[in-house]
Amino acid sequence: MEIPTFDDVLEAHARITPYIHRTPVLTSSYLNQLSGAEIYFKCENLQKVGAFKARGATNAVFKLDDSDAAQGVATHSSGNHAGALSYAAAQRGIQATVVMPHNAPATKKAAVQSYGGKILECEPTQAAREAMLEQVIAETGADMVHPYDDPRVIAGQATCVLELQQEIDKLDTVVAPIGGGGLISGTCLTLAALSPKTRIVAAEPANADDAYRSLKAGKIVLQDAQQSVADGLKTNLKPRTWHFVSRFVSEVLLASEQEILDAMYLTWQRMKIIIEPSSAVPLAVILKHRQLFEGQRVGVIISGGNVDLKHCPGCK
Amino acid sequence: MEIPTFDDVLEAHARITPYIHRTPVLTSSYLNQLSGAEIYFKCENLQKVGAFKARGATNAVFKLDDSDAAQGVATHSSGNHAGALSYAAAQRGIQATVVMPHNAPATKKAAVQSYGGKILECEPTQAAREAMLEQVIAETGADMVHPYDDPRVIAGQATCVLELQQEIDKLDTVVAPIGGGGLISGTCLTLAALSPKTRIVAAEPANADDAYRSLKAGKIVLQDAQQSVADGLKTNLKPRTWHFVSRFVSEVLLASEQEILDAMYLTWQRMKIIIEPSSAVPLAVILKHRQLFEGQRVGVIISGGNVDLKHCPGCK
Repeated sequence: MEIPTFDDVLEAHARITPYIHRTPVLTSSYLNQLSGAEIYFKCENLQKVGAFKARGATNAVFKLDDSDAAQGVATHSSGNHAGALSYAAAQRGIQATVVMPHNAPATKKAAVQSYGGKILECEPTQAAREAMLEQVIAETGADMVHPYDDPRVIAGQATCVLELQQEIDKLDTVVAPIGGGGLISGTCLTLAALSPKTRIVAAEPANADDAYRSLKAGKIVLQDAQQSVADGLKTNLKPRTWHFVSRFVSEVLLASEQEILDAMYLTWQRMKIIIEPSSAVPLAVILKHRQLFEGQRVGVIISGGNVDLKHCPGCK
Repeated sequence: MEIPTFDDVLEAHARITPYIHRTPVLTSSYLNQLSGAEIYFKCENLQKVGAFKARGATNAVFKLDDSDAAQGVATHSSGNHAGALSYAAAQRGIQATVVMPHNAPATKKAAVQSYGGKILECEPTQAAREAMLEQVIAETGADMVHPYDDPRVIAGQATCVLELQQEIDKLDTVVAPIGGGGLISGTCLTLAALSPKTRIVAAEPANADDAYRSLKAGKIVLQDAQQSVADGLKTNLKPRTWHFVSRFVSEVLLASEQEILDAMYLTWQRMKIIIEPSSAVPLAVILKHRQLFEGQRVGVIISGGNVDLKHCPGCK
């Protein structure tokens, strides 16, 4: 199992810089007052394709040598990684093929298509996804880019907190959402190298608390059929992301569905930015567990902004 | 009539920098493709108090000498200037008094109160506002800070395009919304000094087209009872703002109510930022008059993000 190193992160950053936005770090006096902390929001909702996923996918695509790249890339995803991989492939001028459940949201399908990605629809089960993806790879020779269980992807996601750290140092704590663990693994990778004293907190929906249970149990706990408005966070850890989570994450904090929506809505209203439910989980846990953050300099990764505003659960 | 100079702008910028955000300049490949232009959005929706108005108000408040400041500041406004002046006064530790029509939106009143501003309610007519404000000033000796007809305010608003120009040069055109003309006057003031070849376009709701008519007539045309979702733009020009508009604005372009809402909604969805209807007028006119902007480097001032998301006309 290949574990990426901090050198991989620095290489990734140089590699992807021409294709991604350097996203701003925003602050809000109102939220500072409410939390009692000094919060620095790294705004990946303002990233290409509206999510940090552009980083990992772009690193994977541009790390391929020309002959491998010519055969294209493939993945299965019903979320932001699908659009991100299609975006990255388009930047390199190669084909991306994405296996998506037939009931994936129309907006996610549209994002893939807008970048020229090819969608193959399957039944909405993990087994059906994996079988179809295997077939695609066998037929095309495409390179498989997993949404998070891939060292190139983790090194790419790690560039996000690298940029945050370059602008805002001496962070006491960094909070990022956790699903499959790609973003948090990258966060661990960078902070272990640059700021090992910074505490790393993962924020997870209580309705999809597999990472919380895993950290308690000391091993990966799998959960099926998790349900949450934070739909990007329903995935399970893999050994490669568990490697980082088990070593570097201090704790996993949970938020309820309502707390997540309240934090999302509060961010829209006060910070004037659109964030998706998954991205509101860090603020939700900070406000819920005020005493764990009070008086600290806290970095928060806002992971994405892809919300269908017409069918949004948080729109009141 | 005192007309501010570019030196006043540089002084203003130094004066207000500790109290305002340096707002990011964002781009969107999608909107570039749609418009055929290269658009640079200066995001004052992410400014303190959610609007560029923080700049002018802060400059006015901090330019006062201590003895004048001790008597406080006052204004009449039903919009962002009310909150901005209250914010600026709070930063200096002095009292702001704001005369507001009793039917002003609850969110605007709440903004004033959240910064410790004092609200005096009046009948919703221009005459009632001015009479009550005169009385306040007579009684308290407060310094009157007009929302736009004030050289300190214009110099403050001029710092917005100053920052844009520092980051993005060689702009062919800058588009800003026009109401009373404070923002556009500041834009003219800075660009006339730094980039006189940059074309300045004012964007106005067709339902509140007094600036459009004024430029056609060659003199200020007043209109009463203008109605628009872009409620910050219903005000009329004054001789001080007309000074700039008549000399430096190439043209005023109009957008319908629906075009404004469509552009607002498109910005929310694609750029992941909340902008208020007034701030969508520039994009609306760019998309409507594509041929006037195609192939150009275009700066757009996003003036603010104060929308009541619960009662928003653009929320579908």
